[in-house]
Amino acid sequence: MSKVRADISISLDGYVAGANQSMEEPLGAGGERLHEWLTALKVWREASGMEGGEVNDNSPVVREAYANVGAEIMGRGKFGPPSGGAWGEDPWRGWWGDEPPFHKPIFVITHHERAPLTLSDTTFTFVTDGIHSALEQARRAVGAKDVFIGGGAKVINEFLAAGLLDELELHLVPILLGGGARLFEGVGPEVRLEPIRVLEAPGVTHLKYRVVR
Amino acid sequence: MSKVRADISISLDGYVAGANQSMEEPLGAGGERLHEWLTALKVWREASGMEGGEVNDNSPVVREAYANVGAEIMGRGKFGPPSGGAWGEDPWRGWWGDEPPFHKPIFVITHHERAPLTLSDTTFTFVTDGIHSALEQARRAVGAKDVFIGGGAKVINEFLAAGLLDELELHLVPILLGGGARLFEGVGPEVRLEPIRVLEAPGVTHLKYRVVR
Repeated sequence: MSKVRADISISLDGYVAGANQSMEEPLGAGGERLHEWLTALKVWREASGMEGGEVNDNSPVVREAYANVGAEIMGRGKFGPPSGGAWGEDPWRGWWGDEPPFHKPIFVITHHERAPLTLSDTTFTFVTDGIHSALEQARRAVGAKDVFIGGGAKVINEFLAAGLLDELELHLVPILLGGGARLFEGVGPEVRLEPIRVLEAPGVTHLKYRVVR
Repeated sequence: MSKVRADISISLDGYVAGANQSMEEPLGAGGERLHEWLTALKVWREASGMEGGEVNDNSPVVREAYANVGAEIMGRGKFGPPSGGAWGEDPWRGWWGDEPPFHKPIFVITHHERAPLTLSDTTFTFVTDGIHSALEQARRAVGAKDVFIGGGAKVINEFLAAGLLDELELHLVPILLGGGARLFEGVGPEVRLEPIRVLEAPGVTHLKYRVVR
């Protein structure tokens, strides 16, 4: 059955991006360190069109996360650098160049209307009427596959708070960022989580939960 | 060699006590839920002078945490209910009655001077000149044993930020509290943590780290 899933790297102090996100530092101060365990992997590099990389105990976790995903929902903050305004005349086309690594429909949650953008085999659809609408559109696109909530923190928090997430996997990295985008902000005790598995691997601990409504 | 250690139960959203701590709810709203895995255990109940309780995969973790502790340092917020003022004429004598379960010297960090309080075989010494002084006094008391930093969040955060902690164990409970006392608040990226072990057990995941300076 189709599931709504999120998985995200998080610091021990609860941040999924550092402070002061910018064009130059999309993940904020220190935020890149959250993903070092991932970007070193062959499975990630292959999916991103790169060669080389390691195979270790993190590899099957990432392969499992990638499997069976039919569409992704992301916030504008993941699609592009901080701005907040209208798209303008020569609008941002994503961080990923002309061959984005997604190969599936992407739904970008934004306040500002924009026509869909197709780059190679990835189409970005811009959704201005909130997470429920984005999920409905994504569900129509995926059939029996899963919908992946790609972040950032704000979008995952909204899905959690609305009870729309089925599974959440945290990749807990033993660093402190001291500030930034906090996962679980605005999400309260009414959201219950049941552990599915815990897995220690190089540089990171993977904690997978079923979200119970 | 004598170590300075802390271990504390923490929610997935980073709180070690709920919001609105009070005389009636010393651990704040929902805070008791952080300790259900612990208070069910025979090893905890025995140490607290109670009968019964379970033996499960959490038991050796708790036994390891209790072992070789020669003294404890705690904040006034753990010793007594929120108040913040002077001790008064009939001062608070702790939550634990006339037979406290510590059986070792306890150093309570407070802004307000007070003579030591001895209850059975536990002596509470009140330290008004900060964490370095408390640690010095505790070290003199323990010899080769460890000094345990018993919380709350504020005291552990101060020890972390000052680089005075050798080991930190988090008992990660899969609940969200939505507010309360946050571990790691005011502690920055200069504090580095190296995983010692991860252990999944009933109701909780134990994450033990070496703190590197």
